[in-house]
This record gives sequence, C-alpha cells and structure tokens, in this order.
Amino acid sequence: MALSWLSLIILFISSASPVCAQKFDFPRLSLHHEKVFQDPDRRVQVSLISHFKTFFFHQTLDHFNYRPESYTTFKQRYLISSKYWGGANSSAPIFVYLGGEEPIDNDVNVVGFLNENAAQFKALVIYIEHRYYGKSIPLGMSFEEALKDPNARGYFSSSQALADYAAIIRHVKEKRKAKDCPVIVVGGSYAGMLASWFRLKYPHLALGALASSAPILYFDGITPQGGFFSVVTKDFKEASKTCYQTIRDSWAEIDRVASQPDGLSRLSKIFKTCRPLESGDELKNYLIDEYVRAAQYDVPPTYPVEVICGGIDGANASKNGILEKIFAGVVAISGNSSCYIVSPNGTTPSQTQLGWRWQRCSEMVMGDEGITNNSMFQPDPFNMSNFIDHCNRSYGVVPRPHWITTYYGGHDTKQVLRRFGSNIIFSNGLRDPYSSGGVLKNISDTIVAFPTRKGSHCLDILSASQDDPSWLVRQRKKEIEVIKGWITKYYADLLALKQ
Amino acid sequence: MALSWLSLIILFISSASPVCAQKFDFPRLSLHHEKVFQDPDRRVQVSLISHFKTFFFHQTLDHFNYRPESYTTFKQRYLISSKYWGGANSSAPIFVYLGGEEPIDNDVNVVGFLNENAAQFKALVIYIEHRYYGKSIPLGMSFEEALKDPNARGYFSSSQALADYAAIIRHVKEKRKAKDCPVIVVGGSYAGMLASWFRLKYPHLALGALASSAPILYFDGITPQGGFFSVVTKDFKEASKTCYQTIRDSWAEIDRVASQPDGLSRLSKIFKTCRPLESGDELKNYLIDEYVRAAQYDVPPTYPVEVICGGIDGANASKNGILEKIFAGVVAISGNSSCYIVSPNGTTPSQTQLGWRWQRCSEMVMGDEGITNNSMFQPDPFNMSNFIDHCNRSYGVVPRPHWITTYYGGHDTKQVLRRFGSNIIFSNGLRDPYSSGGVLKNISDTIVAFPTRKGSHCLDILSASQDDPSWLVRQRKKEIEVIKGWITKYYADLLALKQ
Repeated sequence: MALSWLSLIILFISSASPVCAQKFDFPRLSLHHEKVFQDPDRRVQVSLISHFKTFFFHQTLDHFNYRPESYTTFKQRYLISSKYWGGANSSAPIFVYLGGEEPIDNDVNVVGFLNENAAQFKALVIYIEHRYYGKSIPLGMSFEEALKDPNARGYFSSSQALADYAAIIRHVKEKRKAKDCPVIVVGGSYAGMLASWFRLKYPHLALGALASSAPILYFDGITPQGGFFSVVTKDFKEASKTCYQTIRDSWAEIDRVASQPDGLSRLSKIFKTCRPLESGDELKNYLIDEYVRAAQYDVPPTYPVEVICGGIDGANASKNGILEKIFAGVVAISGNSSCYIVSPNGTTPSQTQLGWRWQRCSEMVMGDEGITNNSMFQPDPFNMSNFIDHCNRSYGVVPRPHWITTYYGGHDTKQVLRRFGSNIIFSNGLRDPYSSGGVLKNISDTIVAFPTRKGSHCLDILSASQDDPSWLVRQRKKEIEVIKGWITKYYADLLALKQ
Repeated sequence: MALSWLSLIILFISSASPVCAQKFDFPRLSLHHEKVFQDPDRRVQVSLISHFKTFFFHQTLDHFNYRPESYTTFKQRYLISSKYWGGANSSAPIFVYLGGEEPIDNDVNVVGFLNENAAQFKALVIYIEHRYYGKSIPLGMSFEEALKDPNARGYFSSSQALADYAAIIRHVKEKRKAKDCPVIVVGGSYAGMLASWFRLKYPHLALGALASSAPILYFDGITPQGGFFSVVTKDFKEASKTCYQTIRDSWAEIDRVASQPDGLSRLSKIFKTCRPLESGDELKNYLIDEYVRAAQYDVPPTYPVEVICGGIDGANASKNGILEKIFAGVVAISGNSSCYIVSPNGTTPSQTQLGWRWQRCSEMVMGDEGITNNSMFQPDPFNMSNFIDHCNRSYGVVPRPHWITTYYGGHDTKQVLRRFGSNIIFSNGLRDPYSSGGVLKNISDTIVAFPTRKGSHCLDILSASQDDPSWLVRQRKKEIEVIKGWITKYYADLLALKQ
C-alpha cells in the first residue's frame, strides 16, 4: 500500500491549460485525485459498493419556482446500504454522503468514513448523486447535451442540489418510517461546502455535518488573494528550502530559455516531452499544476511534495542547472517513462472538469486562482473582469460573484455563527491549499474545527489504511466522538420531549 | 379612537365566496384588516410615511437558477427612513419590515412597531415590498398580467422573496457602509413567517426576528385540522355561552329555511340583504367570514366578538327566533344601514386576494380551512384532492404541499430548534385563530414565545394607541427588552472580536 498515492500521481494527467486565459478551467476542487478509483491498491474499497442498492428518485427540476417547466421531474440516483442499520424502531442514525462534482459511484469507492463507521453507529448509509453528474441528468439529455443547452444547464446550481438532497432524505425517512432517526451529512471539498450549508439551511433534516476540506471562505474576497498559492509555497518550503528556492528561480529561467530562437525545442528536450512544447506557458502551467496537486493531495506515507523535492534536491545538476533539477522533480513524481508532460490539449475533459467549469462560471466564483507576491510562483492576480469576460464568452451569462455569500453567508462567520447554528465539524489538512479558505478555529462549542498540520485534502473522510499515521487515526476518532456527542444529546432531547 | 377597529369592521366587505368549492379564495392571512389604512382615525400613522424616501432596487428575477431569463431584473420598491438613525460609525441598528401580500405603503401606515421604537434604538427603518405586489412587479407587466401569465407568475414564491430581501439588505448595508450594523427583521402574518424564516435562512444578514402571528406550523398536517375554527369557537364561547349556542344552532335553521319553497326570499327579508340571496350557502359563508374576522381582529378596546355577541344576546327574538338574533349580531358589527350582506360576486378582488390565491395554490398550502366537529360551525373537513383539483383548474399547476416543511422545516420544531438557531420572537394573540398554527411556547433561551390571552392578529406590531390595554403595552415593552438583549450581546461580541 505504501505507494498508493504516489501511483495516483503517476496516473495523473494534467488538466492545466497552456494559456493564461484558460487557467480558470482547472477543476482542482475535487475531494480526491480524479484517478483514485482506478488505483489497484484501493480495490479493497471498490468491493464496498456491493453492499449498496441503487435507487432513482423522481426529483423536481426547479424547487424554487412554479413555472410550468419547474414541475418537470428527472431521475436522481442514490445508493443505500442497510447492512449495518439498527432500524427505525431504535431510531438508529442515517449517514448521508452529499455528492459533489462527479458520478456518485466514484465516491462510494473512496469515501470510506461512512462505511467504516456505520457498524459502530448501526447507521443506514446513503450516497446521493449531485444533479447533472453521473446518471442524474435532467430533461432527458446526456451530460454533454445538458451542459450545452443554456436553459437546461441553468438549473445546475448548488441551491437546487441542496433542495434535491432535502427531498431525497425526507423521502427515505418517510419510506422507512424513520422520522426520529438522526441524519448526519458528510461531504468533502465542494461537497464539504454543501454538507456545512445543508446543516445551516436544513437543520430540520440533518442533525449535524462533517465538512471536510470545505473552503467556504473562498468567496467574495473573504480570504485574501494568494492564500491558496502561499500554502503550496509553505508546503514546499517546509519540505526543503533549497527545493523551494529552485522552483522559485525556475520560472524566470523557463521564460529566458523559451524566449530564445531554439528555446522551445531546448525545453522540450530537457523535459523529454511527449510532444514538442508550444510555449513556455505550457510547461509552466504543467509544473504549477503538478506542485498544486502534490500539495493538495500530499498524503502520507509518501507525501508527494517530499517526493518532488527529493527529485529536485537530489538531481545531478552540473550540466543544465535549474531546469534539470526541475525535470528531476517531474521524474520523481511521475516515475520512469519514455516521455513526459502530456498537454491536455486534445484530451476529452471529464464530467468533473466540464461540470465544475460551468459551476465556477455561474455561482462558484472562488478566489483560489490569484497568485500574489508571497509565493514561489510568478505573481498572477485574479482578474474578475477577465473572468467575467471568459464566462460570458463560454456560456453567454456572467457569474454572480456575491450570490454564495448572500445565500450561505461567509463574511464575519465567527460573529454570525457564534450564537447561531450548531453541530458542524470543519476538518482541514493544513497542507491542502484549500485550507486557506476553510474554517480553522472553533466557532462555538458545537461548531468546531479540526485542522491537522500534516493533513491534505479530504484525507479524514477517505478510506482508512493500515499505513495511516497516528495523528490521522486520532483525528478520525475525535470526529467520531463529536458526532456521538450530537447523537447522544439528540436522543436525550427526544426522550425528554416524549415524556 | 375608541371605535376605530369597529369602524374597520363596518368598512369590511366580505370576500367569502358563495359556494363551497370556492372557499379557498379566502385571503384571510393579512396582518391587518384590508381596510385599515382607509380608517380616518388612523390618520396619525398615515403621516409617518413622510419620513420615508422611496427607492427601487434592480432585483434579480430568479436567484436560484442560471437560465438566460433568470438574469432578468425588475425594479423592487423599498422605503427608508433615516430620521432616527445613529449612523454606521456607531453601528446603529437597522429595522427591516419584510413586506407581505400587499403593497408596502399600506404597511408603513399601520405597522407602527418599527417607527415607534426607532428613536430609542437610533435605528434606520426600511420597509421592503414583496415581489409581485404594489410597484414591484417583474417582467414589465401589470399585476394582473403577471398573475395571468403561467411563466411570469412562476417566479412568485416565498424563497425568491426572501432572497430579494437578502439582496436589498446587503445592498443598503454596503451603500451606507453599515457592515457592523445589526439588522432586526419584523413581519406579521405571512410576513411574520417570512421574518422567522429569514432569520433561520439568512442569519448572516439578520441578527434577529420579530415574527408576529406567524402560523409557521400550519403546513403539512403539523397542526391538526380544525384548530383554526376551534379558536374562533373558543372566542365566542368565552364572550358568551348563549351567543355561542345561538350561532351553533343557526346553521341548521338557515338550511331548514333555505330548503323551503320561499325560503331564500324569507332569509333575504330577515337579513335585509342588499340583493336577493342566491343560496343559503351565500348567507352562511358571509356569517362564517364575519365571525372569523371578528375573532382574528378581535382588537381592544371594543373587541368585535363581544360586539357581535352583544347584538345576538340582546336581540328581541320573540318573533323570528334564532335568525333574528343572528341578524342582530350582523347589525351590531356592521352598524345601521339600509341593507346588509353584500355578496362579493361582481366586486373586483384586491391584489392581496389575487396574489394570495396564487400563493396558496403553489406553495402556501395551509390547513386553516378545515372545520371539524369541535366547533360552533358545521363540519367541513379540508379535502386535499379537491384543493389540488381547484388549483389545477385555476392555474394548470398542482400545489406542492410538502415544500414549505421541506425547505423551512416545521415538523418537530421544538426538537430541531432547541439546539439550532437563535433570536426569534414568536408573538401570538390567542384570540387570533391563526395562533393555533403558531409557536406558543419558548423553544430555547433565545427563541421565545409571547402569547397574549386577549391578543388578536398582529396586534403587537400595529401602531400603538392611547387606548391600548396595559397587557399590550407590557408585551411590546418585553419584546423591546428581548431585542435590546440581542443587540447588546452582538455589540459585546463585536468588541471582543476586534480586540
């Protein structure tokens, strides 16, 4: 198992785009590396899906309006395992995974937290697919058709998705006569935001939420620009100061070489690229993406950032200097290969990439793109008006950058939630650059933060492994204790109210 | 001032419909009697509007979707008085009245609570008009056009209205650099529900809510059928047992007379109707509506229920028995006139009537219509399938009876809100039949109930009068103390966070 995460990175195909204008296409906000479910070392989890039965719910297209089309329904997929459920009579809990930006079967395979703790809670386990992903696509269209149709994709929003979850949770509880069974919602990354928002918006349907790596403060300027890349920088600096310095110096060197007459072919040769490089930016974006992903998914026991830095610091750099060192980092993380750096041009984007691109351009206007001075990267501030132009060109609509904070809040979160709301765990790995937009400190007795110094993106809710370090084992145990506390109080209240 | 409320009742024109199938048209859920603003005795409040400046906000038509039409904007009206405001520098509060099912200028004239307490709080006062009422009608249409257009009226929903309020509150705070100014939202009746829901859904925009006569438990079977009419019955029984018994006996007597060959003309004669009665139901519906309104708006110092019962009990009933007594009740509440009982047929329905009719048939599926055995009325249970048919015939869409409780909650409110949410006052007058769907007991330290035994619909937030009984004066004082407590804690938190 030791190399499982490294092998993920090896499988990684960059989605970075060669030109700056397209950099918004990065679909970075996934709870796990896109290829994780293809990892042969994770086969043990794949078998988990056999506990689950697949259902489809006749979901309302548009919960918030009463136009004739609003009443259209579509089939939304959800999966249930009742293997460990204690049943409605004992008011046994229900764990619900709120799907994010991918087909739900991927999540069942990698988000182990619910399955692995279902037995001790005697919990029913449900995974609900997010509308427009997987098999849950409205209006009788394929995913591609729905994303191309300006009307159809218009119903693809987070508030509709939360209302979908509400309707399905209600339906399952009614069907199983499980009125008094407390529901705990779980999500990671975008779905982590959904989980925390679900507890805030639908407290009558979810007793509590575990929101893993949920960057709910990444909107509307709450988190200062540059936070994301400063965490990546910190990770590399902590791994090795010389490695950090080499990367920092490499950008100007790539620019210098690329600007020379034969520069691009020299760079292609140094980096043994599978195709000739079309620009220096192509190489730089590939490298930025590599470093970002290593930081975001900097999982134990191998820690990809250390792997890259091991390559960079250990390189025989006598001949080519900085660039050969950087290439050694690429080889270290990618493994031995006949060629490197496959540009994403021409590859088919995934549902996650396409779907998230739309979600970013409509409501999920996040500030994780901006690069400021305090990093190992070249400064590249986020330019809202460029972004708006890009979205307008792509979809004919402009983003609503203030909607997320208007609907869900975010500004002054500590002051707002100090005396409002309860039962949310915000867990963040501090090596994950998205932690810069996360809730890292306790807000109240029942809205608590679990930051882990060496943790990465969504690590706590991914399937446990025998190689997990003791701090990760402890973190999961603490989360379980908190959830048990919520449920214990809930049962006591229930008893008191019935007496 | 002594007769002001009585004179309102005199001005009252029944909106009851002559046949049972149309009984759903009752637009009873208004915070005040529809004619209140025409009352000459209330002229003192009318002058309040001169403090206010009118604004129009470019509001988004559809907050929850990203279809091309969703981006359409319309002008939404709101009124601001900064006469008493302490300003942004001192973080002085903002009182916001969330408009209900009528033009907002009506509310400014009768909801005195905000204006009358603005000085002591140094508060900015805002009244926001509900979309589709008054001057806030989307898509460039008139009210009538919008209500007739299946697409246009589809955007007429409570969730859109709350999001409108959120956008305007945010806009005003930004424009006035009032980031730290705490917002208290106030509403009565339907708008009272909106106020409580706004605090629950948008805690980042409202520190607290005063929800007057908000029947949030009148959905989805939470409140058992018949609650509404059993309160009306209780009111009359408390006023006079003989009066209650006379009314209880009158229905069979009307039926008996109406079924006779010359029955309708006899009834028309006994009740001195302005037009010949077309059916016994026409008379019965008029009387039901009269009793309901007397109970709902049973305001001191005259108390219309007592006025009606005074008429009934004091009648010289030697000749015509029960029916002459009932007629004496009509005369007592309506005053001397050449004729009585104007059927609503042929009169133009108000915006409130038309708008609320649509709101009831789409999402506000309330159970206040059902009459069970335990009342002074003839049993007439609410029949959901009849109601669905009626809505389908009227609008071509079917109601969503579970949506309100799915989105806002309602089931197990005590258990849900015991450890979630804060800063809501639920005030209810127990003579108001809508109190049967209200929150009448404290839920937590900060979600509190103020029921008043002799109180009527929304009485606490209507303009104060020198005739107000001491219990009403005390109630308002207590509400003010609670709100002061919220704001004091908020300022303390703000100070602590800034240090």
